[in-house]
Amino acid sequence: MSGDRVVVGLHPVRELLRAGRAVRSLSISERRGTSPVLDEILDLAARAGVSVAHVDAHALDARAHGLVHQGVVADAPAFPLASVTELIARSIATTDRPLLVALDGVTDPHNLGSIARTAEALGAQGMLIPDRRAAGITPTVEKAAAGALAHLPVARVTNLVRALDELGDAGIWSIGLDADAPVELTTSHLVSEPCVLVVGAESTGLRRLTRERCDVLARLRMRGRVDSLNASVAAGIALHVLAQSR
Amino acid sequence: MSGDRVVVGLHPVRELLRAGRAVRSLSISERRGTSPVLDEILDLAARAGVSVAHVDAHALDARAHGLVHQGVVADAPAFPLASVTELIARSIATTDRPLLVALDGVTDPHNLGSIARTAEALGAQGMLIPDRRAAGITPTVEKAAAGALAHLPVARVTNLVRALDELGDAGIWSIGLDADAPVELTTSHLVSEPCVLVVGAESTGLRRLTRERCDVLARLRMRGRVDSLNASVAAGIALHVLAQSR
Repeated sequence: MSGDRVVVGLHPVRELLRAGRAVRSLSISERRGTSPVLDEILDLAARAGVSVAHVDAHALDARAHGLVHQGVVADAPAFPLASVTELIARSIATTDRPLLVALDGVTDPHNLGSIARTAEALGAQGMLIPDRRAAGITPTVEKAAAGALAHLPVARVTNLVRALDELGDAGIWSIGLDADAPVELTTSHLVSEPCVLVVGAESTGLRRLTRERCDVLARLRMRGRVDSLNASVAAGIALHVLAQSR
Repeated sequence: MSGDRVVVGLHPVRELLRAGRAVRSLSISERRGTSPVLDEILDLAARAGVSVAHVDAHALDARAHGLVHQGVVADAPAFPLASVTELIARSIATTDRPLLVALDGVTDPHNLGSIARTAEALGAQGMLIPDRRAAGITPTVEKAAAGALAHLPVARVTNLVRALDELGDAGIWSIGLDADAPVELTTSHLVSEPCVLVVGAESTGLRRLTRERCDVLARLRMRGRVDSLNASVAAGIALHVLAQSR
């Protein structure tokens, strides 16, 4: 049976199973040799009662959305989104200084996936993505996230400003990453507070309403001739500054 | 006349001209509308006496190596590589605490370009790349570097360990980024010293001989379930830690 979504590649599939997320079936290439990660995948699938089919490599190619599947594709139910309220409740239950990340129109799926991976690896409790003018959770995003999306709660919001208001009501400050901000992130008094890092689109940055809603705008210190960073690198550096401050 | 290399896209071409690097000719799509960046490109080209041809969009597609060219492609001489000795001399002439980055087998051209972009933007003085088992300076790399490679000196080395020795003789310490290192980068006593950050391949990390040659191995602090970062994000975070310490 085909699921609502395919998850492609060794690490994304392993993390899905490790996290105990629902998996309908696994397809493994007949040509795939063994590896420690594949052994773990097969072991986890067996314990979870997930059926495994050994299929032709070409059949797998056709289902992998052009992604490097490494011989492994999982069929799974639609990506389980959280609400902002759930994100807040889970964050506060985990730590007294939550760290979240919100994307304001990041359209590149590799950047979205990479930011999710970094956020999870550095200990953030969740991610907010807008439901318009932005990449959704596609197979490419899950692949770039290298399994992080099995562990990181994600809320998709229609109105980011309203979501930031809801976070604010729960005591979570909004820090907007903005190349033109007067304050350098490392010197902001909010870095060690409960906060959500708000990251804008690659070329246009934060939208005006988002920028106006943020409690503080902060920049990374640039010292070169080129004055901008890739969005996922900028988000990674900022998340690391925030993670190190708690 | 066709050059030895093509540089593709608005920012890479603009930075090439801004840096005063040699450009043989420019090709602009007939269909390209004006923009501030394009105006600057045309102005810089006129001042440098670079010929500009307005060409058919399909002809441009064919020359852009499948990259998003944004209507602009430059023909240029082969990428001007520096020697390690030159890299050292230029670094020491610029600052008493040089910051360099060395790649030990990074094979993904997007990662290589992204690391170059971050290194230049954060103020590093140069990059070392091995000439085997690694991506070279291709049009894809230059595109991902968003123009940074017009400003960042790059040395291509046959033997990275020997290059690190040469840097060491000049007082530049080697810090290897290694997920299994006992020391966290932010606590290393070398972060504010003259140093070269050594970054390994995405999956396999630093090679044994490189690891053994580094003066210190350091890791980034991970707090999630996913225990690794994208190579360009990890390098970006580490470079930011080092840049902030000087």
